[in-house]
Amino acid sequence: MAGKPSIPKGTRDFTPVEMSRRNYIFDAIRQVFKTYGYQPIETPAMENLSSLMGKYGDEGDRLLFKVLNSGNFKDKLSDEQLIETAPGKLGTMISEKGLRYDLTVPFARFVVQHRNELTFPFKRYQIQAVWRADRPQRGRYREFYQCDVDVIGSTSLLNEYELVRIIDAVFKSLNLKVVIKINNRKVLTGIAEVIGEMQRITDITVAIDKLEKIGMEKVLLELEQKGISKEALGKLEPVLAMKGTDPEKIAFLESYLASSETGLKGIEEIKELFSFLCETDLKAETEFDLTLARGLNYYTGCIFEVKATEASMGSICGGGRYDDLTSIFGLEGVSGVGVSFGADRIYDVMLQLERFPARGEMDTRVLFVNFGEREVRFILPVLDRLREGAVATELYPESAKMKKQMAYANTRNIPFVALVGEQEMNDGVITLKEMETGEQERLTPDQLVDRFSEPLNLL
Amino acid sequence: MAGKPSIPKGTRDFTPVEMSRRNYIFDAIRQVFKTYGYQPIETPAMENLSSLMGKYGDEGDRLLFKVLNSGNFKDKLSDEQLIETAPGKLGTMISEKGLRYDLTVPFARFVVQHRNELTFPFKRYQIQAVWRADRPQRGRYREFYQCDVDVIGSTSLLNEYELVRIIDAVFKSLNLKVVIKINNRKVLTGIAEVIGEMQRITDITVAIDKLEKIGMEKVLLELEQKGISKEALGKLEPVLAMKGTDPEKIAFLESYLASSETGLKGIEEIKELFSFLCETDLKAETEFDLTLARGLNYYTGCIFEVKATEASMGSICGGGRYDDLTSIFGLEGVSGVGVSFGADRIYDVMLQLERFPARGEMDTRVLFVNFGEREVRFILPVLDRLREGAVATELYPESAKMKKQMAYANTRNIPFVALVGEQEMNDGVITLKEMETGEQERLTPDQLVDRFSEPLNLL
Repeated sequence: MAGKPSIPKGTRDFTPVEMSRRNYIFDAIRQVFKTYGYQPIETPAMENLSSLMGKYGDEGDRLLFKVLNSGNFKDKLSDEQLIETAPGKLGTMISEKGLRYDLTVPFARFVVQHRNELTFPFKRYQIQAVWRADRPQRGRYREFYQCDVDVIGSTSLLNEYELVRIIDAVFKSLNLKVVIKINNRKVLTGIAEVIGEMQRITDITVAIDKLEKIGMEKVLLELEQKGISKEALGKLEPVLAMKGTDPEKIAFLESYLASSETGLKGIEEIKELFSFLCETDLKAETEFDLTLARGLNYYTGCIFEVKATEASMGSICGGGRYDDLTSIFGLEGVSGVGVSFGADRIYDVMLQLERFPARGEMDTRVLFVNFGEREVRFILPVLDRLREGAVATELYPESAKMKKQMAYANTRNIPFVALVGEQEMNDGVITLKEMETGEQERLTPDQLVDRFSEPLNLL
Repeated sequence: MAGKPSIPKGTRDFTPVEMSRRNYIFDAIRQVFKTYGYQPIETPAMENLSSLMGKYGDEGDRLLFKVLNSGNFKDKLSDEQLIETAPGKLGTMISEKGLRYDLTVPFARFVVQHRNELTFPFKRYQIQAVWRADRPQRGRYREFYQCDVDVIGSTSLLNEYELVRIIDAVFKSLNLKVVIKINNRKVLTGIAEVIGEMQRITDITVAIDKLEKIGMEKVLLELEQKGISKEALGKLEPVLAMKGTDPEKIAFLESYLASSETGLKGIEEIKELFSFLCETDLKAETEFDLTLARGLNYYTGCIFEVKATEASMGSICGGGRYDDLTSIFGLEGVSGVGVSFGADRIYDVMLQLERFPARGEMDTRVLFVNFGEREVRFILPVLDRLREGAVATELYPESAKMKKQMAYANTRNIPFVALVGEQEMNDGVITLKEMETGEQERLTPDQLVDRFSEPLNLL
C-alpha cells in the first residue's frame, strides 16, 4: 500500500496522553452527574434517518452523515430516479440510517420509546460522540463529544437550580473559573410582546444577542432594516440601554413587562431561581444576561450559557428548559431541562491554562528492568503481588540493553524502575531507583509491595 | 408523527440498569489493563473506506457500513455509471468513509500513522463500538463493543504470559470461572508440513477445529472429500487420536513434528509459555488445545480462546500473536500479540449466572422528600454537604404526594429517604428512614453527613 495511512478529515485519533486528559474531564463530569442522582444511558450511533431529518433545520439536514443501505441499495429505484433525483433527496432514498447529530433528539426519541419503563422525573446523563459533516476548522470537528445532563417530567425550578449547582461543581472540580449566564426565553418573548412585534421575535432576539459585540446603535439599525417599526424600536431602546446589578435589571424588567403575562412569568422564574441560588455557595459567578438567546428552536424557559473567564473561548457549556421536546416523537406535555458540556472546548481551555495533572492516577508506577530469564522468574511473583494491589506495574518484555529499557521508562514517564540482577537475586532483594532523584533503595519483595501500597508514597 | 419511534434493527439503547451492568464489566477490564501498564487509545468511528476494504475478506467487505459522501455525491459519475455499476462497486464510488468493523485494523493503521510519536513496545488498550451489517439475531448485533488489548513491537513470550495473566485477572475480578485454551499456529503449520499437505493448511485446520463436535471419523471423511491423500490422512490420524495431559500431548507432538522446523518452534513457544505460567497462581484453568484454530488470516504464533465453564456460550475472549499486521499499511517486521474481550457475550453470561452486584457503587443513596419550599430551603445546605462528600443524593423536585415520592425511591431502588417536615424544622433534625427495614432515626445535619461519610455505613 502506497503512502502513509490517514483518517477522514475532521476526525481524530486520541493517543494515550490525550486519552488521559480527556478521561480526566469525562471522569470529573461523570462524578458530578452521579452525585446529583443522574443515571447514564447510551443510544446507538446510527438512528433512523426519519428520526433525525427535519429536527435541525435545513442546515442540519445537510450536515447529517447518511449511512448507505447495505445490499442492493438501488434496486427499488428506476434509472430515471437515479439520474434525475437531486443528491440531497436521492441520499435519503438510498440511506435509511444516519449518524446522530446531537444527544438531544436521540434522548427525546429514547424517552418516548421507553416511556413505560422509565421512572419520572427521569434524570439522565449521556456522554457520547456526535457527527456533523461541517467544514472542519480549528476547534471544529466532524466527530466530537457531548456530555448532556437532563431531567424530564418535572417543571420545578429546583431542577434549574440543581443544573446550576452541577455546572458549578464540574468547573470547581476541573479548577476552571467560569461565569454562568442566565436568561429566560419568556422574558424575551415578553419584550417582543410589549413592543408589539411578537411575530418578529427571532429577529429581535438575534439582534439583542449581538448587543455586547456591536453596541446599541447598530442593533437598532439592524432591526430597522429588518422592518421593525420606529415605534417598536423606541419602546425597545430602554431595554437595550438597561444598566445595573442583577436585582436592578430584574426590577426594571418587572415593571417594563407589566403588560405581558408571559414576560412576568419569565421574571418570576428568574427570581425564584436566583432566590434558590442564594441558599448555596457557588464558586462560579452567576449573571442575569438579557442578551443571552441560544438557538430558539426548542427552549421555552430558563436558558444557561457558561464561559471560562481565564481564556478566550466561546461557550463551554449551555442549555435550558424545553416544554415540548418529545412532541416531535408524539409525546405531548412533558417538560424538561438540561445542559450540555462541550468536552472538546473544555479540553482546549484546560490545555491552554495547564490545568491537567502531570500524571494520570493509573499510569504505570514502576518498570521492572529485564536482565534475562532467570531474573524474570524471580520477578514474576513480585509483579503478581503488586498488580493484585492495583499498582500499575510493567516488566520490560525483552532483555534489551539497559539504556533502551531506561529510555522506555523515561519516555513513558514512569517514576520508578526496579532492578534485579545476579547480586539482588543472591541477596533476595530488589533495587528500587527513583528516576527523578536517582536515589536507590534495596528492598525485600515484602518491603517493595508495602512501599507501593501506602497511599502517601504513591507519588 | 405517527407510530412509536424506533431504532435501526440490530442496534440497542442502553437503559440505566443496563449501563450500570455494562460499566461494571468495562471498569473491571479497564482496571486490569491499566494495572498491567497498557495505555488507552481511541480511533474515529469512521475510517477511510480504503483502510477497511479488503482487510476482512469478501464477506467483510459486504458487511461494512458505508457512509455516503456529503454534498453532491454523484457529480463525478456519468448516468451510465450510476445505472450500470453493481451496487457493491457503486457504493465505494459514492462513499469514501466506512464505520470501523473491528479494532484491530484501526489499531494497525494507528500504529503506522503515529509510529514516530509512539514508544515501542507499545502497549495499548481500546474499548469502543464496532459496526457490522450482519443479519441481526439473538446475541448478534450490528453495533457492539470490543475491548482489545495488544502489545506491538516485541516478540518476547512474556507478552503472551502477561495476556494470559490479564485474562485470568479480568475473569477473577468478574467472578466468572473460565478455561483458557492455548494453541500455536506454528504447530498447525508443522502438522500440515509433516503430512505433506502444506498447501491445504486451511482445510486441515478448519477440519481439526471440528474434532470435538463431529469426531475423528467425520473429520477424516471431510478431509478425504476435500482431496487430501490417504497417505497424508494416515499420518494425521495419530494427531487426531492424541490423548493425555498437556505435557503428554506436547511431548508427543515434539517427536511427531521432529522434521518440521516451524512445528518445533511452535512447540518450543508453547513450552516456554507454560513454563512461565507455572510461576504464577491462576484462578482460570489453562489447557493446550490442538483443535483451537481461530481465523487464520493473520495469526502466526500462540493463539488463545476463553470459554465460561458455568454457562453455554461461544468464546468470550480470544486472540493471538501476529507477525505482520501493520504490513497492510506499509510497515513491515513489527510483531504484536493481543486479545479481545467480547463485552456483549460476557454481559449475557454474567446476567444468566446473576453475577452482577445488586447496586451500583454510585447509585443514589438517599432521596430527600419534598414537602414544600420552606422545607426545601432547610434541606439545600445539607444536600450540598452530602454531595461535596460525593454521596449520591437527590431531592424530589416537586412537592408531590408522599406516596408518589416514596414510589420514586422504591422504583429507583434508593435505600434511604430523608424527611423534613414542620416538626423536624423546629427541632433542627432530619428523619432518616431505611427503606428495607422501615427503621427511622432522627439526626442533626452533622450526624446525617457523618452517617453517610463512613464507608461502612454506605449501603
